[in-house]
Amino acid sequence: MPVVNINADIGESFGTWHKGNDPAVMPLINSANIACGMSAGDPTVMHETVALALKHGVSVGAHPGYNDIWGFGRRAMKMNPRDIEYLVAYQIGALMGIAAMHGTKVTHVKPHGALHNVGIVDADVADAMARGVKGVDPSLIYVGLAHSHIEKAAHRHGLRFAVEGYIDRMYDDDGNITSRFNADAVHKDPARAAAQAVAMVVDKVIVTRSGKRIPVEVHSLCLHADEPTAEIVGRATREALIAAGVELKTLPEMGL
Amino acid sequence: MPVVNINADIGESFGTWHKGNDPAVMPLINSANIACGMSAGDPTVMHETVALALKHGVSVGAHPGYNDIWGFGRRAMKMNPRDIEYLVAYQIGALMGIAAMHGTKVTHVKPHGALHNVGIVDADVADAMARGVKGVDPSLIYVGLAHSHIEKAAHRHGLRFAVEGYIDRMYDDDGNITSRFNADAVHKDPARAAAQAVAMVVDKVIVTRSGKRIPVEVHSLCLHADEPTAEIVGRATREALIAAGVELKTLPEMGL
Amino acid sequence: MPVVNINADIGESFGTWHKGNDPAVMPLINSANIACGMSAGDPTVMHETVALALKHGVSVGAHPGYNDIWGFGRRAMKMNPRDIEYLVAYQIGALMGIAAMHGTKVTHVKPHGALHNVGIVDADVADAMARGVKGVDPSLIYVGLAHSHIEKAAHRHGLRFAVEGYIDRMYDDDGNITSRFNADAVHKDPARAAAQAVAMVVDKVIVTRSGKRIPVEVHSLCLHADEPTAEIVGRATREALIAAGVELKTLPEMGL
Amino acid sequence: MPVVNINADIGESFGTWHKGNDPAVMPLINSANIACGMSAGDPTVMHETVALALKHGVSVGAHPGYNDIWGFGRRAMKMNPRDIEYLVAYQIGALMGIAAMHGTKVTHVKPHGALHNVGIVDADVADAMARGVKGVDPSLIYVGLAHSHIEKAAHRHGLRFAVEGYIDRMYDDDGNITSRFNADAVHKDPARAAAQAVAMVVDKVIVTRSGKRIPVEVHSLCLHADEPTAEIVGRATREALIAAGVELKTLPEMGL
Repeated sequence: MPVVNINADIGESFGTWHKGNDPAVMPLINSANIACGMSAGDPTVMHETVALALKHGVSVGAHPGYNDIWGFGRRAMKMNPRDIEYLVAYQIGALMGIAAMHGTKVTHVKPHGALHNVGIVDADVADAMARGVKGVDPSLIYVGLAHSHIEKAAHRHGLRFAVEGYIDRMYDDDGNITSRFNADAVHKDPARAAAQAVAMVVDKVIVTRSGKRIPVEVHSLCLHADEPTAEIVGRATREALIAAGVELKTLPEMGL
Repeated sequence: MPVVNINADIGESFGTWHKGNDPAVMPLINSANIACGMSAGDPTVMHETVALALKHGVSVGAHPGYNDIWGFGRRAMKMNPRDIEYLVAYQIGALMGIAAMHGTKVTHVKPHGALHNVGIVDADVADAMARGVKGVDPSLIYVGLAHSHIEKAAHRHGLRFAVEGYIDRMYDDDGNITSRFNADAVHKDPARAAAQAVAMVVDKVIVTRSGKRIPVEVHSLCLHADEPTAEIVGRATREALIAAGVELKTLPEMGL
Repeated sequence: MPVVNINADIGESFGTWHKGNDPAVMPLINSANIACGMSAGDPTVMHETVALALKHGVSVGAHPGYNDIWGFGRRAMKMNPRDIEYLVAYQIGALMGIAAMHGTKVTHVKPHGALHNVGIVDADVADAMARGVKGVDPSLIYVGLAHSHIEKAAHRHGLRFAVEGYIDRMYDDDGNITSRFNADAVHKDPARAAAQAVAMVVDKVIVTRSGKRIPVEVHSLCLHADEPTAEIVGRATREALIAAGVELKTLPEMGL
Repeated sequence: MPVVNINADIGESFGTWHKGNDPAVMPLINSANIACGMSAGDPTVMHETVALALKHGVSVGAHPGYNDIWGFGRRAMKMNPRDIEYLVAYQIGALMGIAAMHGTKVTHVKPHGALHNVGIVDADVADAMARGVKGVDPSLIYVGLAHSHIEKAAHRHGLRFAVEGYIDRMYDDDGNITSRFNADAVHKDPARAAAQAVAMVVDKVIVTRSGKRIPVEVHSLCLHADEPTAEIVGRATREALIAAGVELKTLPEMGL
């Protein structure tokens, strides 16, 4: 029986500012990437988000990013890799503190925004992030893009790695995501997104923009919680996966 | 054989800005109250400070404060107690993350600056802080002022509590510290500070400004690391205590 | 012919986080209190808000607050009054910089959130704010609560002062606003709000909670732009004032 | 009679953290590049720095940088150029507010740290900064590196531009500064620095690392105020320039 995880970036409200629709998205996912207060989120939002995750049987992960609230962590910063190592450890630890209040543990880490994008292509940054994750807890599951420097660093440091696939994004023939400059980059049709998810998990292929079939091995599907269509795309995908006989699991249950 | 702990607030540099003289102070203390990045400190400074503490056999504690770097956490903020609970948990957790990288644990907590001052007199804030400490780890030793709301909340929540005494500050007859508005509020003479420390630990008394002797039970002596005289006061106190047959211990060794 | 100004706090989005409905509210007001990047807003939001104000013939004012984005400037901070003086001047200046890009000027100042609330009751803080306003530009119109320390400080420093009245809030017999702890504190009925506005401007009275009529002299009516009912309350008030023969003016046109 | 200006980056303390030795450096310079609260400095430090500048007849300029206090504005950030335009305008305006309190004006702008470095090589960022400067006040003098995108953008927007030379840095044959990776990159000998300053101003040449003589036209000499040798280098340079018959002027007096 095929298995997969559904994750989403969540808990991205900040102080009096709201973002996303966490109560609608949380029931649709298995693992939550929770903002850690430096790119989004704050201690109180983190508390509320962990509580919401536990209510829905969702496993708790850290979503560390640059210390740039104003930019929502989406602006690459030229930081010393050593600083990035401790920045990541700090944020994972902060969420561990909040999780402990709820009697639960942080079980995975997925880098946020520009930190993720930089880590994909920059070996030094990727290594620093992997050191930060491992240093805090070597049993943490690290979530990221296949064939990236993030995956390479995870393997080099002996971390368990969950390969992530995108439900609602078109792929190019080289396995990368189609740029948002193309009109068809995002699947707005829930049925289209659901079909891509099923193909990735059951058939282990991605059908690219040109129709080519690329083999993939995906452990976790990312639902973009900040899209207006998050709820209907998430529901359609979840239902299609279950109908196709796929079992949905939290990241710690995935046996990575 | 009398025992006591010496603690200091440390790791208060921030980014490119330096504060204090940590390499000189660390060898003189047994337990370090490490700034957690919201009132002072940053992830890299926290890393360096934990490393320095371990090098000198100093136990590691969190020194959480208001999220007000500009004000160094010294400006009281009218926060919702629930927010304070998570603010404290967040910062303890963040230091736990950094400590884990060094294979060590956070073993105590002492509130910083205005958060400490508000907690002393505000029962709701004190309770929120105690909940934050206990929620993260009920085995944490909580350090604070005797007879304050901080101590009451610690006892109410079943936390181990270390009563703190000041080495270099004059006391009034009511057991409070003499206001800095008085010229003699700070003992600048190392011999004077050392004598007060020995009296507190060996004779279990404080000799007040008027000469009155108040009985005290102090577990930990605070050395103000940001005073220019920190090093000579700390050294004199340490030597006087040892000469008086006092054993210096880390907070976890104090058997609280 | 009676005249009055309608003002609103606006431009309170921050980075990727949205707040309020500025495009709907701006056409309903005459003067905009624009967040200055320390409690809300950021340079880009300030630019967009000034552009929107000019498009609708709305005069531009600064809405300075505490440097506490996380708390939206709603948490009182125990700051040195000297620091408050420069904090206020900094924020007014920052908006002057953005306004200059649009060929316009900042013509009024209204303190935001907790800074406003503290200034009302704390003479030292109120004096510091007035010094900050006057220091930057003594021709600035200062907007605030009648009979408060803010008004007293404004007069003492020779600043023009616009007394503010609330459209949608119940008043007590002592002239203060009814606490939100009472169910009837906010007028949710647009007709009720509009009637209160007309009474304040045309009849120069407030009808209090108990039915008492208090004489008032109000120069500017505050529309709470972050209430869900802001648009309908604003529209009803505006129409009722015009129907009652009241002329709506920007603050500089009020002849204060 | 040859003329030149000496400038320094100053006012870089932040809250309770001190940096530099402003009282020693201010008497040695003619124009101050004052940190504007986003990379360094805060409203109170800005006030104190403007007061110190006026006391020594030093002209006041803005030194805007990235909104990254933790990184001291030295970490390049991938920002939208539009955001940079308003970021620069915001900071110049903020200093205008503080300057107005002292009855003086901001007369020049020099970008700080990584914002300066990025602007030198990135035409879009350089254009955004020039738009920000011009938008606030087209009479501002813009200070930067010759032949850079910063200079090109300044000229394109009709801004007055002051070419900056470095007193204490070795130059390569291509006119760029020798990298700090080379041991001889910084002139630690005050006489050497002073001689380079005189050569740049009187002989209008730089003698490079290899001994080559490059023609230059420098309007302002930068003294690095945060170097431990700032005071002796500044004093030696100032004396050598005066002895060589050079007149030292503020930027507005330079007739640019």
